[in-house]
Amino acid sequence: MRRQFLYNQIRRLSLAELNQNVLNAKYAVRGSIPIRADELSEQLKKDPKSLPFKKIIYANIGNPQQLDQKPLTWFREVLSVLQNPNLLDKGIYKRDVEERARRLLNDVKSLGAYSNSSGSAYVRKTVARFMDERDGFKSDPANIFLTNGASTSVSYLIDVLSTGKKSGFLIPIPQYPLYTASISLNGATPLFYYLNESNEWSTDPKQIKNIVVKAESEGIDVKALVVINPGNPTGALLSAEDIAGIIDVAAQHDIILIADEVYQNNIFQGEFVSVKKVLCELLEKDYEKYKHVKLASLNSTSKGFSGECGQRGGYMELFGFPAFFKDVIFKLASINLCSVVSGQALVDLLVNPPQEGEPSYELYEKESADVHSTLEQRANALFSAFKEMEDVSCNMPMGAMYLFPRLHFTESEYPELFKIAETKEVPVDEIYCLELLEKTGICTVPGSGFGQVPGTYHVRTTFLAPGSDWVTSWTDFHKKFVNHYKIKK
Amino acid sequence: MRRQFLYNQIRRLSLAELNQNVLNAKYAVRGSIPIRADELSEQLKKDPKSLPFKKIIYANIGNPQQLDQKPLTWFREVLSVLQNPNLLDKGIYKRDVEERARRLLNDVKSLGAYSNSSGSAYVRKTVARFMDERDGFKSDPANIFLTNGASTSVSYLIDVLSTGKKSGFLIPIPQYPLYTASISLNGATPLFYYLNESNEWSTDPKQIKNIVVKAESEGIDVKALVVINPGNPTGALLSAEDIAGIIDVAAQHDIILIADEVYQNNIFQGEFVSVKKVLCELLEKDYEKYKHVKLASLNSTSKGFSGECGQRGGYMELFGFPAFFKDVIFKLASINLCSVVSGQALVDLLVNPPQEGEPSYELYEKESADVHSTLEQRANALFSAFKEMEDVSCNMPMGAMYLFPRLHFTESEYPELFKIAETKEVPVDEIYCLELLEKTGICTVPGSGFGQVPGTYHVRTTFLAPGSDWVTSWTDFHKKFVNHYKIKK
Repeated sequence: MRRQFLYNQIRRLSLAELNQNVLNAKYAVRGSIPIRADELSEQLKKDPKSLPFKKIIYANIGNPQQLDQKPLTWFREVLSVLQNPNLLDKGIYKRDVEERARRLLNDVKSLGAYSNSSGSAYVRKTVARFMDERDGFKSDPANIFLTNGASTSVSYLIDVLSTGKKSGFLIPIPQYPLYTASISLNGATPLFYYLNESNEWSTDPKQIKNIVVKAESEGIDVKALVVINPGNPTGALLSAEDIAGIIDVAAQHDIILIADEVYQNNIFQGEFVSVKKVLCELLEKDYEKYKHVKLASLNSTSKGFSGECGQRGGYMELFGFPAFFKDVIFKLASINLCSVVSGQALVDLLVNPPQEGEPSYELYEKESADVHSTLEQRANALFSAFKEMEDVSCNMPMGAMYLFPRLHFTESEYPELFKIAETKEVPVDEIYCLELLEKTGICTVPGSGFGQVPGTYHVRTTFLAPGSDWVTSWTDFHKKFVNHYKIKK
Repeated sequence: MRRQFLYNQIRRLSLAELNQNVLNAKYAVRGSIPIRADELSEQLKKDPKSLPFKKIIYANIGNPQQLDQKPLTWFREVLSVLQNPNLLDKGIYKRDVEERARRLLNDVKSLGAYSNSSGSAYVRKTVARFMDERDGFKSDPANIFLTNGASTSVSYLIDVLSTGKKSGFLIPIPQYPLYTASISLNGATPLFYYLNESNEWSTDPKQIKNIVVKAESEGIDVKALVVINPGNPTGALLSAEDIAGIIDVAAQHDIILIADEVYQNNIFQGEFVSVKKVLCELLEKDYEKYKHVKLASLNSTSKGFSGECGQRGGYMELFGFPAFFKDVIFKLASINLCSVVSGQALVDLLVNPPQEGEPSYELYEKESADVHSTLEQRANALFSAFKEMEDVSCNMPMGAMYLFPRLHFTESEYPELFKIAETKEVPVDEIYCLELLEKTGICTVPGSGFGQVPGTYHVRTTFLAPGSDWVTSWTDFHKKFVNHYKIKK
């Protein structure tokens, strides 16, 4: 082996020469705090006793199988046959596993073949049927696009709709930062509407309407309105009434609706109602009023009880869009050839699970119910801990896999904390998250990474990590933090 | 089930309101002719006797497993265990299959967990070692990024480097249209250099230098130079000498090199030499001269003898880049969370196959050699057919999986053909490909989709389809086509 050449000196390339839209994009879920967590994790591998904790608890990202969640047997058995069809007819798997594998192979031929750029025709039909049964309204498989998780769907939509700085996208605050990142990448303008923390992070259609009117008066072409339901990072669930209010704004102002519904299977309180269902009900009542509304609905195999993040399965339905728009999305998808075919198959397995009476039914039901109840217990345990913490308030999540507690820190009560934040030029909640990480190994994301009402501070944490030790160590940390920074009265 | 609501009337959305860069992007490999092929395929399903052929031969895209290529046993056995680790210790698989599966699971934990956004640390180390052994120079795993096929790597690079219309990218003509599409999406400027058809589609560094000088004098900031080696669609192989000439231009003008080397395992004549190897040899000779050269090298699991297109595995090495550049690429990757983890595992299986003495070695060697010799035979058979066709010339491919025969059609000899093309406002070779499709079911892509010297016409076809019937029917079609359109002397 000859020598290794390393990067040595920069003659030409500078940050200023790169795409400024890319440089402006921010994605805190894998930003500075998670990067620091990775450094600490490496340090622990080399010297396990060098830090006051034994391992990093990755609570920054909804990644259940990185923690201890087991994949569902049904998914993995069928996928293993798709990878190796020689496993068929060996008495290894149940009848319905083999049948489904055969059906999928019949359509995709091999996981190693590019599919159609919008995805397998068979799987798109299954998805349409799933939505039919969920909502009671007929869907068209030609409107379904299978993508690498829901992230790719979001990118496609915002790429196609962006026409520069004057194109506006309505985004909830707090939001999942993929939205602001995609808007930045396109040099478009985010228009923020605030969720109401004091009322379970609810959405106010009137506020949205006011923002639209103001933006339009300033010459902004409002392209689309994003709703995240169940909410990320808030865990809020939209009521059918609020959804109807949002659709009214979309109808009146010709704004495309983007419904991010990837947590539709993570429901702890209340009932999930899809935007599609409410829209179809409104169309039944007053077709003329709503016939122009265009709705893109997103779903994913990464969330729900499946938690198959790394498999990159997802889809979107484009409802009410003209054919040319779908053609443009198809072209964008075709430039990347197709989404991963095993992920497409997983979408099929998720939306069309074993039915009662089939051999895999009972285990599937048991495993998915177990995942659900485990998540609910962990959500409750963490929620109870936050309720007890000084200067912290928290809404109980109705859905999703996050808690977004508020830190009631004020400059008058926490002067030193605010001074440090000012010196380091970072928000107060980032200092909190960084100290939490350095002292306990718990990796979270500051509320500033998701957006929040100016002057308020939050932390986003998943409730996926097993055990109660980490909750206890967070509680201890918080006590010491408040004790250290809060002025004694 | 209630009624189905269909798209009905457009009030607002028009093409003019969409992102013009997206509208301008073209991707012929899945463009109008393949879309027409899908329509014909649907027609055949409904009425098998309605067309003069029984099935569509998809020769438009390098998609071996859509035709009859079987996946390699080694890949699929390990991947099936990764999907279902319960298959371990059951006596189903050989020792090395189980060992590799354990090693990969040890690193990624589960295929269902998001990995690091640059990919599994273990797989990145394997890739670095593979390149070390291939080239004889040491690589750094920190420079490796695992992506969804090579397409995503290309998108990231061109996205990050584009700063509007004044940013130029040197692209070979003919080219793989992903490049022009990505440049269009960013509103940047493609700078075309022509490959020399009369000399086996060779690359001329002097021509490239002249184009750079001219572009710079016109105020274009030349960002990067793309080489595709082995060539797509040409099948050409770059010599070490020409690579050195290209590196010289890059060094003199501070241009980033993008080496698309996804066909490095599809070699039929001569030897593949990587750009990295030549660059490192030049660095050994004259470090000062070459120390600023930055090289992005791409590879994929979709091509070679694996042909696992639908699994979306790929990687790039960023050699000689400053840390901030890699940070920006990491951020872009993190917005999409991570590439598909099963595709990452497949990269490992491809670059680190079973070694002599291991249980899976013999079968792996046999299967990969079989794929290779089958491809070579098919290339030769199709090449021979083109040599016999009237007004057709063709270079024998040295690598890749395509032939790019030239159609020597002139307006004086084929006046009616040129008139039809003019009326339909499409290039002459598109008429040829469309008639070929309608008469024989063979789906190809016109040379105009890849770029060609103005006034020349070509067809790109893969040589992946099995059997000789389709070659015969192409030959028959061509005779009739010439007979119909060519003026009798």
